[in-house]
Amino acid sequence: MSKGFLLVISGPSGCGKGTVSKALLERNEDIVFSISATTRKPRAGEEDGVNYFFIDEDKFSTMVDEGKFLEHAFVHNNYYGTPKEFVMEQIENGEIVLLEIDVQGAMQVKKNYKNVVFVFLLPPTMDELKNRIIKRGTESEEDIERRFKNAFEELDFVGEYDYFVINDKVNDAVIDIENIIKAEKLRVKRHSNIKNQVIKQGGK
Amino acid sequence: MSKGFLLVISGPSGCGKGTVSKALLERNEDIVFSISATTRKPRAGEEDGVNYFFIDEDKFSTMVDEGKFLEHAFVHNNYYGTPKEFVMEQIENGEIVLLEIDVQGAMQVKKNYKNVVFVFLLPPTMDELKNRIIKRGTESEEDIERRFKNAFEELDFVGEYDYFVINDKVNDAVIDIENIIKAEKLRVKRHSNIKNQVIKQGGK
Repeated sequence: MSKGFLLVISGPSGCGKGTVSKALLERNEDIVFSISATTRKPRAGEEDGVNYFFIDEDKFSTMVDEGKFLEHAFVHNNYYGTPKEFVMEQIENGEIVLLEIDVQGAMQVKKNYKNVVFVFLLPPTMDELKNRIIKRGTESEEDIERRFKNAFEELDFVGEYDYFVINDKVNDAVIDIENIIKAEKLRVKRHSNIKNQVIKQGGK
Repeated sequence: MSKGFLLVISGPSGCGKGTVSKALLERNEDIVFSISATTRKPRAGEEDGVNYFFIDEDKFSTMVDEGKFLEHAFVHNNYYGTPKEFVMEQIENGEIVLLEIDVQGAMQVKKNYKNVVFVFLLPPTMDELKNRIIKRGTESEEDIERRFKNAFEELDFVGEYDYFVINDKVNDAVIDIENIIKAEKLRVKRHSNIKNQVIKQGGK
């Protein structure tokens, strides 16, 4: 029986982790997406249990106290967290669970859990990183500069990850991550009794 | 600048490591084959510096004393060893060097070197393992039984390796190893200054 693993796709804002994760999930129906819990109100079109688990602050606070999050954070006046139980169950069942998360969140996960594969998504150039931050179009010049400065500093965290993938073309980045998944499935450490499996296949 | 690595393909006799390694090299011209040194006489068709470096016992003994082997062994009255300098140079230059070797040799390499990716090749079933040992046709029943017993015991060493690959069809095993190589090329630990590489691409 082989265990699955948590696949953390992370990187600075503007690296395209949302786009890459979405494309990866579309092409690989067997990958399970880890749904976050949040205290923020649903936006138009967002569904509870699909995009997020929408919960109130009391519930969130109780879950924090009970250690029910893999990681959690307070961002723009709202709480976000990754429910632990779902992820752990899926991994025990051999599933690969995708968690798309910022660098701070990934570092929280790294501190507390093993059996995680950390992928750092890089922009092809710093110019392109800036373009991507600008293209969101929802922010002031000051916000853009702040985000870019943060992103630049977050690149230092690449050394904490297992793999790096350069997100120049989304499709190429997805193929790189698919290769990482294929290789990680062949890791000896996640399989118990490999010898017995061979012996059982048709007998000694 | 990224370092290469030593790719050790290993497993019990009958697992097909020779066939798989040959097919892998044919399909991937960029992989460098590590040529062993041996004191055994060349067989018909074998070339010095291609199949083996054929050297005498004095030379071999001197090389052992000078620590010039990654690993060495005495098998069927002949010495075999993996010259270290060539492998190390290639790895420094970013190359992937393939070393096809038995389990004992792999364990010697593991004890002494880092920056090695260990792949254990498994037979699909124990019956198939026995068939493959028999098919060599050059050995007595007693030799076959001994080899099979050894192979069975060597399966215990799979836990010492990074990856396992089941060699049912050679082509599938080669694809698995190619995926492992692609993923290992994206390992953060073998790249220095990933951030600087991104910054240099087109400037900040």
